[in-house]
Amino acid sequence: MSNSVLVVGSVAFDDVETPFGKREDALGGSAVFFSMAASHFTSPRMVGVAGTDYPDEALAMLEQHNVDIRGLEIVEGKTFRWGGVYHEDINQRDTLYTDLNVFADFKPVIPQEYRQTPFLFLGNIQPSLQLDVLDQVINPKYIALDTMNLWINTTLDDLLKVIRKVDLLIINDSELTLLSKETNLLSGLEKLHTMGPQHIVIKKGEHGAFLSYDTKLFYAPAFPVRQATDPTGAGDSFAGGLMGFLTSCEKINFTALKKALVYGCVMGSFAVEKFSTDGLIQLSREQIEIRYNALRKLVTI
Amino acid sequence: MSNSVLVVGSVAFDDVETPFGKREDALGGSAVFFSMAASHFTSPRMVGVAGTDYPDEALAMLEQHNVDIRGLEIVEGKTFRWGGVYHEDINQRDTLYTDLNVFADFKPVIPQEYRQTPFLFLGNIQPSLQLDVLDQVINPKYIALDTMNLWINTTLDDLLKVIRKVDLLIINDSELTLLSKETNLLSGLEKLHTMGPQHIVIKKGEHGAFLSYDTKLFYAPAFPVRQATDPTGAGDSFAGGLMGFLTSCEKINFTALKKALVYGCVMGSFAVEKFSTDGLIQLSREQIEIRYNALRKLVTI
Repeated sequence: MSNSVLVVGSVAFDDVETPFGKREDALGGSAVFFSMAASHFTSPRMVGVAGTDYPDEALAMLEQHNVDIRGLEIVEGKTFRWGGVYHEDINQRDTLYTDLNVFADFKPVIPQEYRQTPFLFLGNIQPSLQLDVLDQVINPKYIALDTMNLWINTTLDDLLKVIRKVDLLIINDSELTLLSKETNLLSGLEKLHTMGPQHIVIKKGEHGAFLSYDTKLFYAPAFPVRQATDPTGAGDSFAGGLMGFLTSCEKINFTALKKALVYGCVMGSFAVEKFSTDGLIQLSREQIEIRYNALRKLVTI
Repeated sequence: MSNSVLVVGSVAFDDVETPFGKREDALGGSAVFFSMAASHFTSPRMVGVAGTDYPDEALAMLEQHNVDIRGLEIVEGKTFRWGGVYHEDINQRDTLYTDLNVFADFKPVIPQEYRQTPFLFLGNIQPSLQLDVLDQVINPKYIALDTMNLWINTTLDDLLKVIRKVDLLIINDSELTLLSKETNLLSGLEKLHTMGPQHIVIKKGEHGAFLSYDTKLFYAPAFPVRQATDPTGAGDSFAGGLMGFLTSCEKINFTALKKALVYGCVMGSFAVEKFSTDGLIQLSREQIEIRYNALRKLVTI
């Protein structure tokens, strides 16, 4: 069995407005962004749900990008839809609506043929569903988890159960503060490690990302883009690059995770340059390597 | 003549409150922070003004740290005083008062014996005074400039005259936007280069600093401190470390400036850990090197 990564997350339409334009019915969702980013490193396996309005062209696009969509359920009804407006300061956004639609009844079923996938990414969904996924998979080699403020605030007990079982926790800096009740990065990381994960990644958007590996720290800057057109999906694309690269590593050690963090930043930067998943399609491995090397050079004396 | 750096800036008392405590009559001012930081690399020469209330202990402390204070004028009256409160989010602060006192009539006079100092740092004072300084010095090898939003908004013409004459412009990211009218880092830097400086440093506080050297970019992360006790003077300490280190370099090339940027981050991190200049005193070169190496390791795969 080749090394692959299984992602469980959302499949969505996004209606997005940013200072650089507007896009309706844009393909989105954590599972989609993650898969598209990871597809440049491996053939990711996607579990999610979409409605009967999900276009054939989108399915074709995913398949053309080597995404295994046997785990994508299509059910009667409308696909999950999110609408939002980004401010002049692109780090700020207002959610206009969140129509869960078919996603409201999502119960992830991991197809038999996916259950032994060595790498698992639990996208940002309800922690109880993430626990359901963990019950269905068989002895994964490496599990990464994304979550959000909503679950920290409303279903902390379930979330802590998930956190205890994962190898890598990926959150942003405000979630670090919320979860650890510490404003200092180092103190916050120490507290999170006691909750279970040996590896923690703190995403800081345009300010890069920290990796805490046991007690060792590594930092990767974000790639300075010419235009951050649409930040939607940047975090999931980051995770897709990170986990996608890891599937190609023989050992999951500090060095592998450091490189993976940089690949995460690379894929996040491609994602934000264009609307929706546009920055992740028709991207060559060479373009990815060029940006990886540029990011390394940026910090090299 | 040994390689030294001349700094012209403010000498102040700060009344500071942060989430970690309160300090009154704290030693502050751009010339003081800069000099204390640079003193670990060279014997900096300070030009500024203080009132007759400036304590002998402060003068002794500066001299013990190898700061040449022959250019520090003591005039009848009170020393410049600034009062401020930092928020829970330490990047936000409110100024309670700014009592210029003797600083209101400051006309920098560069002592004869300072005029050929090879390195010059124009601390954040009125651009017309910075121009006066440039008229008095003789053929400096390398000039760096700090400024602030006030001068960009009120005396832009004078400021642009200064900017045209310096080698290195050091500003923070909000000043970059204000001065270049660009929100994007790369576009902003390009615009600033057309204004004169070949080298530009963008300070991003806890998010590190960018160096733009002609068209080449370098990035140094901030050192992750256990506690950012008091950010006052961090920028000037950063500049002091940067310029202090440069005085020891044979050539001012990209490599020298990259290292200098990291030393700037190191000195900024020591400064914020304690109130006032406390983090910069009784600091060994070994402690500085340890932190420099830790910062390099933080980004090394």
